[in-house]
Amino acid sequence: MFRNTQFSKITGIMKLLYPTSLKLDVASLEGFSVSLHSYDVKGTIPEDLTDAEVLVTWGNNADNLKDAAKRLKNLRWIQSLAAGPNDVLSAGFSSSVIVTTGSGLHDRTVAEHTLGLLLAAARRFDEMRDYQVQSKWAQHLGGPQPDRPTDRFTTLRDANVLIWGYGNIAKTLAPHLTGLGATVRGLARSAGVREGTEVYSEDKLSELLPQTDALVMILPGSESTKNALNAERLKLLPKHAWVVNVGRGTSIDEDALADALEKGEIGGAALDVFVKEPLPAESRLYKAKNCIVSPHAAGGRPQDAEALIAYNLRRFLAGQELKNVI
Amino acid sequence: MFRNTQFSKITGIMKLLYPTSLKLDVASLEGFSVSLHSYDVKGTIPEDLTDAEVLVTWGNNADNLKDAAKRLKNLRWIQSLAAGPNDVLSAGFSSSVIVTTGSGLHDRTVAEHTLGLLLAAARRFDEMRDYQVQSKWAQHLGGPQPDRPTDRFTTLRDANVLIWGYGNIAKTLAPHLTGLGATVRGLARSAGVREGTEVYSEDKLSELLPQTDALVMILPGSESTKNALNAERLKLLPKHAWVVNVGRGTSIDEDALADALEKGEIGGAALDVFVKEPLPAESRLYKAKNCIVSPHAAGGRPQDAEALIAYNLRRFLAGQELKNVI
Repeated sequence: MFRNTQFSKITGIMKLLYPTSLKLDVASLEGFSVSLHSYDVKGTIPEDLTDAEVLVTWGNNADNLKDAAKRLKNLRWIQSLAAGPNDVLSAGFSSSVIVTTGSGLHDRTVAEHTLGLLLAAARRFDEMRDYQVQSKWAQHLGGPQPDRPTDRFTTLRDANVLIWGYGNIAKTLAPHLTGLGATVRGLARSAGVREGTEVYSEDKLSELLPQTDALVMILPGSESTKNALNAERLKLLPKHAWVVNVGRGTSIDEDALADALEKGEIGGAALDVFVKEPLPAESRLYKAKNCIVSPHAAGGRPQDAEALIAYNLRRFLAGQELKNVI
Repeated sequence: MFRNTQFSKITGIMKLLYPTSLKLDVASLEGFSVSLHSYDVKGTIPEDLTDAEVLVTWGNNADNLKDAAKRLKNLRWIQSLAAGPNDVLSAGFSSSVIVTTGSGLHDRTVAEHTLGLLLAAARRFDEMRDYQVQSKWAQHLGGPQPDRPTDRFTTLRDANVLIWGYGNIAKTLAPHLTGLGATVRGLARSAGVREGTEVYSEDKLSELLPQTDALVMILPGSESTKNALNAERLKLLPKHAWVVNVGRGTSIDEDALADALEKGEIGGAALDVFVKEPLPAESRLYKAKNCIVSPHAAGGRPQDAEALIAYNLRRFLAGQELKNVI
C-alpha cells in the first residue's frame, strides 16, 4: 500500500525500515498506517529514510548501526530479530528509543540443533567421522553394545538432562528429550513447574550436577552468567557427563573446560558458542578430547519474524506495551 | 528357582539357555516351570545342557550356532534377540524348530540413531567435524542462514520425509520427526493410515520420490528388497535430497549411490548399513561427497528383552502361538 516513498512523504505517514538481510514476507506487514521501506544492513541508510520512526534490524554491521544512531533523529522503536541484540545496545542509540528483541524467533531452530548435538554426543558422530575420513570402520561404536550403561552417555533414553537457563528454547527442547525417554530438569532464577518440567532455583545446582548425564546450557550473556560453569562446578559433574552449550560462550570458563576434557574428568562437550567467535585457531577446544565444535550454527535464521513485527507494530500504533522489550 | 542344573536333571524340567552376551535380568524370567541356564555364545554348549528345549540367542558366533544345531536334539524353540536373525536361519537347525525374532526390541534405539543421522545431515555435523580437526571455524555453516530454503535440506521443520519400510521402527520414529515439524509419509507393501501417518503402497514410489527432502530406508534384507534404491530411482529424488539407510545395506545399489553422490545428483547419504560389513576400506562410500558412514551402530542393544522372552515363554508353555515367529 504505502511502499512508495514519494507518497509517504506527501502524507507524512510513519516510516518503518526493514532489512534485506533476510527474506521477509512484506505483504504480511501491510494494512497498518505505516510506510514500509527496505534498507541494506551493511550500508548507510539513505537520506530520505532518516526520518523513520521504526527500525527492524538483522545482521546489521556496526557502522550501519552507529550511523543510524546518529542520523535517525525521529527513531522511537527498534525491533531486533536477534534473541540478544547486543549490537543494537552498544551502537549509541538514545535511551528514549525502545528496543525489542527477537526472543522466540529462534526457539525451534536452536532446539533442533541442540537435540542434534545431544544425539551426536550420545552416538559419537564426531568419532565416527574421524574413522570415516581414514576409510576405517569404527568397530567399537557399532555392533552389539551394552544397553544404557550407567557409566557412559550413549542414549537419551533414561538419561538425566539438566537444562540450565530455562526459557523458551528450553521449553521447546524439553518435549523432544522426554519423547526419547530422558528425564529433564531445569535450572533457573525462579523455581517452579513449567509445562510439566520441574525447574529448580540455582541454589540447587550443586545437588543436581552430580545426577546429570547431560548438562545443556542456554544462559544469556551477562555479567551474572560469566563463567557460570567453572572448574569447581565441572568437578561436580559425573565423569561420563556431557556439556552442551547453545547459550553464550561467556557462561563457561573455557580453560577449565579444556582442562576437564583433556584430563577426562567429564564425558565430553558439544559447543555452539564461544567466548570469542570465530573460535581462534589456537583454542585448545578444537583438539580437546571428546569436544564437538559447532560454529554458532544453532540459530541464525529467525522464524516467523513477520508475525512478531506485525504484533508489535499494532501495539506500537495503539500505544500499548510491546513484547520482548529489553 | 530352577537354576540349579542338578535339580533340573532330577526333576527332568525343561531347560532354557540364555546368553551371557548381554545383561539380562534373569530374575524376571523366573516363576515358570523351566530351568534357566546361562551359556557362552562364542563357546560350545556344555554337554549337560544339550537337552535344552529353548535357546535364546544374541551375538552367537557361527560355530556356536552350527554346533548347537547338531547337538541340541531336543530343541523346539529359538528366541533370537536380533530383529533379523539371519545367523540362526543359516546355521542348519531342523525346520521343526520354531524361530522367533527380537523385532520390537530395537525400535527405540534405531529410531534415536536415525533421528540423529537426519539432524547430522541437516546441520552438516560431518562437515563441521572436518573443519574442527583442522582447528578451523566452519564459517559458512554458522551465523545468519536462510530459513528453510527449498533447495537444501537444512532442517526437519517443513521437510518432507519419506520412510520406506513402514514397520515398528518407522512408527517409533515418525512422532519425533513430526514433533520437529516434518511431514512424514510412509511407503510399504500395503497402504493405509498408521497412527496418523499416511502410508502409501510401493507403486506410488515414483510419484513420492520427487517430493522428498529426506528418504529414510528401513527395509528388511531379502531378495525382494535387493537394490530397491537403484540408479533409476535415485534420479527421481530432488538434487538436495538426503538418503538415510538404517535397514539393510542390500536395499541400496551402492555403486549407483556413490555415483549419485560424486556427481552431486542428490544432497547426501547417511548410512548405517552396507552390503558388506565392516565396509571395506576400498569402498567409495567412505570418501564420497556428502556421505556419512555409521558403523552399523543404530541398534545392537536389545531393550526389554526379558519381557519378550517371558511373554513368549508363557505362550510356549501354554501351547499358544508365539510372537514374532518367522
